[in-house]
Amino acid sequence: MMNGPLSLVHVLERARRYFPNSIIASRLPDRSFLHRCSYADLYRRSRALASALTRRGLKKGEAVATLMGSHYAHMEAYFGIPIAGAVVHTLNPRLHVDETAYIANHAEDRFLIVDDTLLPLLEQIGNRVHFEAIFVFSLNGYPIPPGYEDYEDLLASGGSDFTYPVIDENDAAAMSYTSGTSTGRPSGIVFSHRSIVLTCLGILAADSLGVVCADVVMPLVPMFHVLSWTLPYAAVMAGSKLVLPTGHWETEHLVELLEIEKVTLGTGVPTVWLAVLQLLERKKRNYKFASGLRLFVGGAAAPEAMIRGFDRQGIPLIPAWGMTETSSNIVVCRLKPHLHKLPEEQYYAARARTGFAVPLSDVRIAAENGDEVPADGATMGELQVRGPCVAASYFKKEPDPDSFTSDGWLRTGDVATIDGEGYIKICDRIRDLIKSGGEFISSVELENAIMGHPAVAEAAVIAVPDPKWSERPRAFVVLKPGAVVCGEDIARFIAPKFAKWWLPDEYVFVESLPKGSSGKCLKRVLREQAARRGQSGHLPS
Amino acid sequence: MMNGPLSLVHVLERARRYFPNSIIASRLPDRSFLHRCSYADLYRRSRALASALTRRGLKKGEAVATLMGSHYAHMEAYFGIPIAGAVVHTLNPRLHVDETAYIANHAEDRFLIVDDTLLPLLEQIGNRVHFEAIFVFSLNGYPIPPGYEDYEDLLASGGSDFTYPVIDENDAAAMSYTSGTSTGRPSGIVFSHRSIVLTCLGILAADSLGVVCADVVMPLVPMFHVLSWTLPYAAVMAGSKLVLPTGHWETEHLVELLEIEKVTLGTGVPTVWLAVLQLLERKKRNYKFASGLRLFVGGAAAPEAMIRGFDRQGIPLIPAWGMTETSSNIVVCRLKPHLHKLPEEQYYAARARTGFAVPLSDVRIAAENGDEVPADGATMGELQVRGPCVAASYFKKEPDPDSFTSDGWLRTGDVATIDGEGYIKICDRIRDLIKSGGEFISSVELENAIMGHPAVAEAAVIAVPDPKWSERPRAFVVLKPGAVVCGEDIARFIAPKFAKWWLPDEYVFVESLPKGSSGKCLKRVLREQAARRGQSGHLPS
Repeated sequence: MMNGPLSLVHVLERARRYFPNSIIASRLPDRSFLHRCSYADLYRRSRALASALTRRGLKKGEAVATLMGSHYAHMEAYFGIPIAGAVVHTLNPRLHVDETAYIANHAEDRFLIVDDTLLPLLEQIGNRVHFEAIFVFSLNGYPIPPGYEDYEDLLASGGSDFTYPVIDENDAAAMSYTSGTSTGRPSGIVFSHRSIVLTCLGILAADSLGVVCADVVMPLVPMFHVLSWTLPYAAVMAGSKLVLPTGHWETEHLVELLEIEKVTLGTGVPTVWLAVLQLLERKKRNYKFASGLRLFVGGAAAPEAMIRGFDRQGIPLIPAWGMTETSSNIVVCRLKPHLHKLPEEQYYAARARTGFAVPLSDVRIAAENGDEVPADGATMGELQVRGPCVAASYFKKEPDPDSFTSDGWLRTGDVATIDGEGYIKICDRIRDLIKSGGEFISSVELENAIMGHPAVAEAAVIAVPDPKWSERPRAFVVLKPGAVVCGEDIARFIAPKFAKWWLPDEYVFVESLPKGSSGKCLKRVLREQAARRGQSGHLPS
Repeated sequence: MMNGPLSLVHVLERARRYFPNSIIASRLPDRSFLHRCSYADLYRRSRALASALTRRGLKKGEAVATLMGSHYAHMEAYFGIPIAGAVVHTLNPRLHVDETAYIANHAEDRFLIVDDTLLPLLEQIGNRVHFEAIFVFSLNGYPIPPGYEDYEDLLASGGSDFTYPVIDENDAAAMSYTSGTSTGRPSGIVFSHRSIVLTCLGILAADSLGVVCADVVMPLVPMFHVLSWTLPYAAVMAGSKLVLPTGHWETEHLVELLEIEKVTLGTGVPTVWLAVLQLLERKKRNYKFASGLRLFVGGAAAPEAMIRGFDRQGIPLIPAWGMTETSSNIVVCRLKPHLHKLPEEQYYAARARTGFAVPLSDVRIAAENGDEVPADGATMGELQVRGPCVAASYFKKEPDPDSFTSDGWLRTGDVATIDGEGYIKICDRIRDLIKSGGEFISSVELENAIMGHPAVAEAAVIAVPDPKWSERPRAFVVLKPGAVVCGEDIARFIAPKFAKWWLPDEYVFVESLPKGSSGKCLKRVLREQAARRGQSGHLPS
């Protein structure tokens, strides 16, 4: 067989040949306006970028950072940098500037491309990072401030005669850092051309996301976050229309985009979809979405109530699972045919599982001794994963036993069960599990049950120290606007679903939950606040 | 990223973990009976086969031949031999025994697994091939004749403790020979684990065949022919139910299987689907097919009339293109969204094109000077292909310029056009083109137009030598039962579609057309018969 490499060059060339007229629609800062360009433009401008950066001396394997929202120029960086043999490194503007400075230095980013709207953030980083040149992409069309170069000038300096360098499929193409945790610095993941192309093929598989050229794809995961789950690359491979919200992540604008651009496929974390669902349920007006619209939810376990809620809106919401280290979602919840016939309760329980692995990826649930747990849908263990789209190490770090098993599987830090059909269900992060009287309580299961209460908008459950039981669950609850309920109401509502000792000892009603850069609840912050306030646990009002 | 190999071991292990209950239904010689087994059985028996052959001394890279129909035991060979590190080599029982003997010797097949129903054929080959052992699979349950070993005994000799050998993704997994032509001996293509897995991912892509676990897949291309277009492997990767007709390729039985097994996806060559369509149109009774049934047609250009005919039956027929050298169909005709809105004539013209390349594969149409032809949908050139699922050479042969271009593309020998949307349309085999007065006439376009006549069942057009024009087209026509038309009727029918000089000079009505092992019309035979009979061209009655 021919040994041509799996590479993003092929994906871009394919787009030129078959889908030059496919559209990338980007919401600009003036929200009323959508910038539209075609894959032909993407092709031309990505190659101009590759040519220009090469002329500026960019060498194979070097990193070019982006500090950008989700829009067409970020797409150009997604392709233009890797096809030059270099590595596109997406910086996350939601991180603390100290963290961003650390990450850019650690990755040895040589150049930076930045949205003008994010220049204030860049100025906070100041001289802690030295980029050889900073190219500013003007979203507003405003002039570029002194001290920076104009991204459009950079593109204009590229030749149309660019020739691709020799690319091996294992060459680095992109880079993303995990969010820093309380226990350590952020860690870099390097994605190869091979891993990105294989991830795209996994996304195109009909039983996975099943992206087709007729799709209108809107990644509600920002492009600075884990390559937006690799979906922008997959959309270009499929030839789909892409809808990108730039930096407008407000729920109303997302829903408006879903409607006016006739989106057929959206991806996001539970908090984003929860806000969308609540907006739809408030029914300010009747939205008309494209027939065939389907949503995928990842990043954290999807509450069953949310799946039922979207079903009432006529929109399937499909759980999936992945993390930075796995390139994209490598577990998707597609029901096997016989499961469609289950009675309602079991049917939705099946729908709310996390799913099974897409082709090429292997998953297992390991007990503490390393053996696989029984496939009974109840025994918890650590989710471990393996495959050609899974990181084998972190950038400039030796693989350590906290991250990788001795037989070469990635330890995800997620706790899950597996049932007889092979479906896993994420129960919790290991560090969020509550150990009460020697037994584990899943904070996520409690949260999802609480969110089933009609008055509840959001919930988070954490462990608080307890002298008798070691740890006990405490719930933080955000009510829907105007709702009035007390902790006892909620306790009564969820009681039938759990053993008595699982039920939270306390319900704390709050205005909102602290969120991380990807929109997930930061339980660490809740725990720290609880610790600072002793046993009272109440948040500042 | 982890560097685990793309391998059939993963595909088989995935089937065990997620789809142990998926069914393989095989038609046995007693036609009333379908043998049913599960993927769990496939897993267990494939591993037993791998273990047993390893114990018999089979070494990495050695070939094991099969001479079998399409059924569950052939599936075991498809997996059991490659997971042992060896190469499954499917012999084609429709070839002449001389050719089969040549192929088995050329491939250095060490063992043979053969259906008992094909033993008479094997005995014709006699001692021209020396297999170290011959294992007979008893389809009928009859005792195994002396001199042979029982396939079931072989399996029983395998241990359940089989451990996989180390497999590199570029290791050979399977092997298939092209049919011999008048110009040369058959040539062997070696498929690697990598190429098979990538081919499967191409097949699973939603815009390609889009196989899902809820599908019931029936390959109407025999498993001894180009790995049945790799579809059996893809079905196992997806977890689909498989329906295999063993050796019952009679149209009525195929249609019955499509119906009773609720098939949702079928693949076959035009002649097979044409016979199916004619059966449905005769409407002996109303068949009830599964909703969502879709058919793919490859191996030769699909007549537009056939696509229209299946549409009238409510069944989409989708053209595709591939050859032994490309593992499977690497071109599929999926309409881009805006093409669905074309007026009827243009819509069906679009549907009848061959399609565009699936991800990972590149196609181009080259003029004689090697440049790409203009994308005008009219200029003919040679279809050339490239990609990780395309053969780089033939087994034990150096790449020669007749087969490969100097820049590394496979020359397919097919003539095609390409339009502005990137859709190619196969016009002919290079050797079947008719050169009349210095201009090319496509035999396939004439055939497809003739087959649009309601009285015509099948047609073939060949070039016959002509003193004035060098070559002129002659049509061979098979009429539908009971139909009465003359050549002039047909000529009048097709005249509006062609320039006058394209129209055949003569129409020869025949009972049937000569067919090759894959069901395609053997024009070589028609040409030879025409040559033997001088200019009369009439076939023996």
